Amino acid sequence: MLSFSDWCQSNVPEQVDVEQVIQRLIQQRIETPSWGYGDSGTRFHVFTQQGAAKNVYQRLEDAAQVHKVTGIAPSAALHIPWDYVEDWPALHRHAQEVGIELGAINPNLFQDDAYKLGSLTNPDAAVRQKAVGHMKECVDIMRELDSDLLSLWLPDGTNYPGQDDFRSRKRRLEESLEEVMDYMDPHMTLLIEYKFFEPAFYHTDLADWGSAVLLAHKLGPRAKALVDLGHHPLAANIEQIVAFLIDEDKLGGFHFNNRKYADDDLTVGSINPYELFLIYNELAAGEADGDLDIAYMIDQSHNIKPKVEAMVQSVLNIQETYAKALLVDRKTLRESQRQGDVVACEELLLKAYRTDVTPLLHRVREAMGIDPDPLQAYRKSEYPKYVLTRGT
Amino acid sequence: MLSFSDWCQSNVPEQVDVEQVIQRLIQQRIETPSWGYGDSGTRFHVFTQQGAAKNVYQRLEDAAQVHKVTGIAPSAALHIPWDYVEDWPALHRHAQEVGIELGAINPNLFQDDAYKLGSLTNPDAAVRQKAVGHMKECVDIMRELDSDLLSLWLPDGTNYPGQDDFRSRKRRLEESLEEVMDYMDPHMTLLIEYKFFEPAFYHTDLADWGSAVLLAHKLGPRAKALVDLGHHPLAANIEQIVAFLIDEDKLGGFHFNNRKYADDDLTVGSINPYELFLIYNELAAGEADGDLDIAYMIDQSHNIKPKVEAMVQSVLNIQETYAKALLVDRKTLRESQRQGDVVACEELLLKAYRTDVTPLLHRVREAMGIDPDPLQAYRKSEYPKYVLTRGT
Amino acid sequence: MLSFSDWCQSNVPEQVDVEQVIQRLIQQRIETPSWGYGDSGTRFHVFTQQGAAKNVYQRLEDAAQVHKVTGIAPSAALHIPWDYVEDWPALHRHAQEVGIELGAINPNLFQDDAYKLGSLTNPDAAVRQKAVGHMKECVDIMRELDSDLLSLWLPDGTNYPGQDDFRSRKRRLEESLEEVMDYMDPHMTLLIEYKFFEPAFYHTDLADWGSAVLLAHKLGPRAKALVDLGHHPLAANIEQIVAFLIDEDKLGGFHFNNRKYADDDLTVGSINPYELFLIYNELAAGEADGDLDIAYMIDQSHNIKPKVEAMVQSVLNIQETYAKALLVDRKTLRESQRQGDVVACEELLLKAYRTDVTPLLHRVREAMGIDPDPLQAYRKSEYPKYVLTRGT
Amino acid sequence: MLSFSDWCQSNVPEQVDVEQVIQRLIQQRIETPSWGYGDSGTRFHVFTQQGAAKNVYQRLEDAAQVHKVTGIAPSAALHIPWDYVEDWPALHRHAQEVGIELGAINPNLFQDDAYKLGSLTNPDAAVRQKAVGHMKECVDIMRELDSDLLSLWLPDGTNYPGQDDFRSRKRRLEESLEEVMDYMDPHMTLLIEYKFFEPAFYHTDLADWGSAVLLAHKLGPRAKALVDLGHHPLAANIEQIVAFLIDEDKLGGFHFNNRKYADDDLTVGSINPYELFLIYNELAAGEADGDLDIAYMIDQSHNIKPKVEAMVQSVLNIQETYAKALLVDRKTLRESQRQGDVVACEELLLKAYRTDVTPLLHRVREAMGIDPDPLQAYRKSEYPKYVLTRGT
Repeated sequence: MLSFSDWCQSNVPEQVDVEQVIQRLIQQRIETPSWGYGDSGTRFHVFTQQGAAKNVYQRLEDAAQVHKVTGIAPSAALHIPWDYVEDWPALHRHAQEVGIELGAINPNLFQDDAYKLGSLTNPDAAVRQKAVGHMKECVDIMRELDSDLLSLWLPDGTNYPGQDDFRSRKRRLEESLEEVMDYMDPHMTLLIEYKFFEPAFYHTDLADWGSAVLLAHKLGPRAKALVDLGHHPLAANIEQIVAFLIDEDKLGGFHFNNRKYADDDLTVGSINPYELFLIYNELAAGEADGDLDIAYMIDQSHNIKPKVEAMVQSVLNIQETYAKALLVDRKTLRESQRQGDVVACEELLLKAYRTDVTPLLHRVREAMGIDPDPLQAYRKSEYPKYVLTRGT
Repeated sequence: MLSFSDWCQSNVPEQVDVEQVIQRLIQQRIETPSWGYGDSGTRFHVFTQQGAAKNVYQRLEDAAQVHKVTGIAPSAALHIPWDYVEDWPALHRHAQEVGIELGAINPNLFQDDAYKLGSLTNPDAAVRQKAVGHMKECVDIMRELDSDLLSLWLPDGTNYPGQDDFRSRKRRLEESLEEVMDYMDPHMTLLIEYKFFEPAFYHTDLADWGSAVLLAHKLGPRAKALVDLGHHPLAANIEQIVAFLIDEDKLGGFHFNNRKYADDDLTVGSINPYELFLIYNELAAGEADGDLDIAYMIDQSHNIKPKVEAMVQSVLNIQETYAKALLVDRKTLRESQRQGDVVACEELLLKAYRTDVTPLLHRVREAMGIDPDPLQAYRKSEYPKYVLTRGT
Repeated sequence: MLSFSDWCQSNVPEQVDVEQVIQRLIQQRIETPSWGYGDSGTRFHVFTQQGAAKNVYQRLEDAAQVHKVTGIAPSAALHIPWDYVEDWPALHRHAQEVGIELGAINPNLFQDDAYKLGSLTNPDAAVRQKAVGHMKECVDIMRELDSDLLSLWLPDGTNYPGQDDFRSRKRRLEESLEEVMDYMDPHMTLLIEYKFFEPAFYHTDLADWGSAVLLAHKLGPRAKALVDLGHHPLAANIEQIVAFLIDEDKLGGFHFNNRKYADDDLTVGSINPYELFLIYNELAAGEADGDLDIAYMIDQSHNIKPKVEAMVQSVLNIQETYAKALLVDRKTLRESQRQGDVVACEELLLKAYRTDVTPLLHRVREAMGIDPDPLQAYRKSEYPKYVLTRGT
Repeated sequence: MLSFSDWCQSNVPEQVDVEQVIQRLIQQRIETPSWGYGDSGTRFHVFTQQGAAKNVYQRLEDAAQVHKVTGIAPSAALHIPWDYVEDWPALHRHAQEVGIELGAINPNLFQDDAYKLGSLTNPDAAVRQKAVGHMKECVDIMRELDSDLLSLWLPDGTNYPGQDDFRSRKRRLEESLEEVMDYMDPHMTLLIEYKFFEPAFYHTDLADWGSAVLLAHKLGPRAKALVDLGHHPLAANIEQIVAFLIDEDKLGGFHFNNRKYADDDLTVGSINPYELFLIYNELAAGEADGDLDIAYMIDQSHNIKPKVEAMVQSVLNIQETYAKALLVDRKTLRESQRQGDVVACEELLLKAYRTDVTPLLHRVREAMGIDPDPLQAYRKSEYPKYVLTRGT
């Protein structure tokens, strides 16, 4: 293989400080979701995988393994009640023991028959209170676990025209979330996820980034939008939404995944890797202009791929993409943009995108003291065999 | 209310024979699906409904009730193994007792872990044989129940680029189905359903009408395509597909429902009733040109509406739409088309579509000896209370 | 035909005051676009129509004719420079003579080679100033014509990734429009139209309602969003956007049309009339809750239908839809929503939608002193023949 | 830069014969369209470019220049009547002089007012004859120019429901094309392009690959389908369509371009380069299984990029993609597919896709005797300055 310095010579633009790139890559952080390690599926079938994690303890173990081989996935997001335990300090200790931090807390507002017509937006005030209560319970858990991110995906919506009143629901949501925000501590942030459709099939109360950002503006600086890559209309320009949210100071976090059709929850970058690069291009440009405070999280459902392996692959896809985005020659790009040289602008992005960043990532992994090929390292490790043996 | 003859005067074009329209409406047949009467949901949650049918006996009871109030839903489709029983003659007798016929048999190729990488297209010949075997078992059941429709929805596809070879899968499918066709009796028809995506999220082996019709041409005259209204790309012109399939003599059946986004399985006509009218406009035109042999079936999943009530509503939506399509003045339409009078053509369709067909449907129901308002009749009947009391 | 009082008995819910409905319909106002009367087409071909208006004088004549037969289209929107004249008072007098008011002024930021890389967002300050200057010129024309609506469709966007910087363009747009707003008089309103794509094919600077409403919030109460029905991603729930804009007090106007695929500019209601009804359902509900100040405008391009005839048809489609929306029994609807009776809610909307409102519209037209069948009246009038004879 | 043999060692799988890859790349042929060198635009504006070709002679000159720097674009497609000349032998000589071959002949069925309601499908037999006559004229031109490809894009469709009868139009099209096929010489092939929508906005007579392939089957072995990458519904799996057409022996040609929304006619590979790779992956797999006879053509409209430069970029994008597809280790891929190792399958494709193929392409260009960086070579050449000086 090419020596690193030879690689740099042909691949790193003069304007780019490769040591800074390496530092950025070492400091990159991606949170994996506890729910990504258990069996999952479609409405038609859940394929059971031998060795898939059966409880939160095993899920954290898996997450720790992903971090062990990638070096950049040090925390796991929890989902309540799926990850609910009686003894939070015990869970906290377990996490420390296996080597994983606990990250964002995700309330669940979709798995109770009471929410058939909505949770925080339900016409019935008692149901809304139940949903608000669950969110407050999540805030209590955040206090137990020193988490500072409350990550809300609101599944509310209607299935049929006329079923409920859009404006009334909008106001109920605003009121419900104000109550939750009041309950939160000052260091806590509420992330507001939006989604084009599903599980509601006629309207969704928070269907797009516009709804989320308007709501976040009303709720104040501790409320921000969360972008899930699978939650947009077909052909939406997600990188533009990312840029606009940065400009509005309302980009709070990501749920990474990919899709071809709907919210397919496929491996991030598996369908349109260039789109992921263009998103990271906005993030790298944003970082170049000032500090960003964004939670990078994966939200995927590997129905047919082995769970831990697929998560390793996902983390690596993101890392590779970030590396490429850091190689964009921004100074020349700005100059070409000013000159209106459309082909030159595009080729500057493509040059970075087409770069084989393997030598750079090897150098980064060397610096982190991990195997240069994490996916093979995982495949060859004892862990895939171990999980087949662990109990339920 | 307007007298029927007054209604006719303002609403029935001179060229249309209203008695024939009434006969068509009396003879209309819509099959309801046994699986539409049990609890259903999304991948996020199945909302349980008090009184939802718990077994095939209750499901047939419900289907019979829909027929009782609508008069045009005399049969129910079965799904194997969901409706599997040891004693088929007993089920047949039960059906006769509650007053329902048994219709299309639907094999299930999606709920077995063996099918993770495909059923009839699986790279592993043993899995393909298992799937073929299940379809033959369904043919055996058809013999037991005197059914002549084998209605195949192939859920096969892949989730990731490279996962399998498109052309190999295409050929495996052709071979598998040839074996099934050989096993079928001469009076039996294979309906081939296509679907744009889900549960596979990268490619689907039978993704569009083109794939289905090419396959049906290969399999011979006893193989036809089945159109599910929710299985197309956004903006697809379904009425054109219906017309093309009629022209190719390959339109075997429908799965009625509606959607706004993906395969939402909402009540037929609830999102775009004009599209349903345009589809029926093609069907009525096709009938005017010669006999059609099409199985009209509903395939819906009423996650939040009461099951039986929603099915009554669905049958009525289809009936209303067919009634309107029968009122199109086709002779004048053809003349306006020849003259290129675009506005006149459109207004001829709209005139029929805008007609309030209530008096016509009352007359039809009177002739069938049922209540003129089936939905209210159902709501006021003892049945909704009864289902709450029946066991599991 | 049914007498009006008989019609009312079967069709008007008890809670609805039919006299108020009639008043609403008499007061309905729809503005037609001057550019809808001239030849138009696709990028592939402009089909020339004999008799299509050749200049602004003829276009206003046509608009006046549409008003003459419909009674509810008293004004025409102008497009600068297409409708530019040297002598504005003369145009104003001509308008009064033919019986048409002058409505919204629409600047043109897409037909100058200078705008190749953007107008109000162009990287080059000189081009931005040119665009701002054109908008100020339009404000001057508004003063000449006593118009109070400046209706901006911003065509800006990019065709290729990297071509320009999203955030810089966003800020340039905000600055440019602040300058325009400063130039406007206090009674003037800026309508901000958004569009998903076209003529730019990678990103559009104002691509969705979220962008438009955030911008309008920044620009103050005299800036509002304009909803063009053809400018959304496929499957977007436009009626929800309308409701949200009402709730944000940012719904300034409509551009009515319809589409199946992209921005097809077809006759309003011709593809999905139920969607139009659901939009009007929100408008009627909004009116019931308080005064709305919305400019209802048509923006269509009748490439193959005769121009004036198509515009009459369009106005009538909107009128019919509004009539149906006014017949919704809102009190019972709210009650059913509270009870979570999904089927009842839906049937309440459907009851209004399915109503044949011909007798009601006849009554309204009688009150306005016009022919009860405006389309036939137009077809039979001398006007279609007249336009064939007028010069260029 | 890395030596070629070092590059091979890290980048060429053992199973791949790099000399064969180089031969394939040297033999690659991409046809550019004469109409891609003149001014073009959207329905809103055509941006004029200084130096854009003004006539067929200049267009061929431009095409020759693209071939000169890329080495793999030896022919140009013609469009009749845009490229119509009185003296065909003179044009043929001019082409030879500038160094370009004449390729597919493209009839124009969309730019005549007669075709307002259709060309080959028009309800009026006289219009159909006019369209058939134009196609026969194109066959005559093919004889003059020794072309053997008649490349039909049928723009026919309707804008409104009811405007015409789907089945009648289908039959008229079949009849019209049978007449054209009868007129063609035995060595000539008819390529049938399909398109989801535009310029018709309600239905398109050849809307999808299914329609095209059914028609091609009816017309016999000399009729094949042509895939334009921008002519599909959003999210369609084009690589699957390509594979199916290969399997049906009906893949006749490509129109390369890219799009994000509709038929945007952007530079091939500019929006989703991985999709282009997956398409080429099918082509390379098809070639590995047997000879393919496919016409690879570009169909783009560079509204804001300089014409020749954009075409060079496009040819290079295709070449790079083909190079990557040739590096896929197909033997291991088949083995991984058999084992159902989804991650391994995907990584095999990704390994090839992520390869920096610059050294390979340099080697290929060296063998062809051209500059290793064709885009820079073009930019630095005299040609961009020359075109600014040539007359009209």
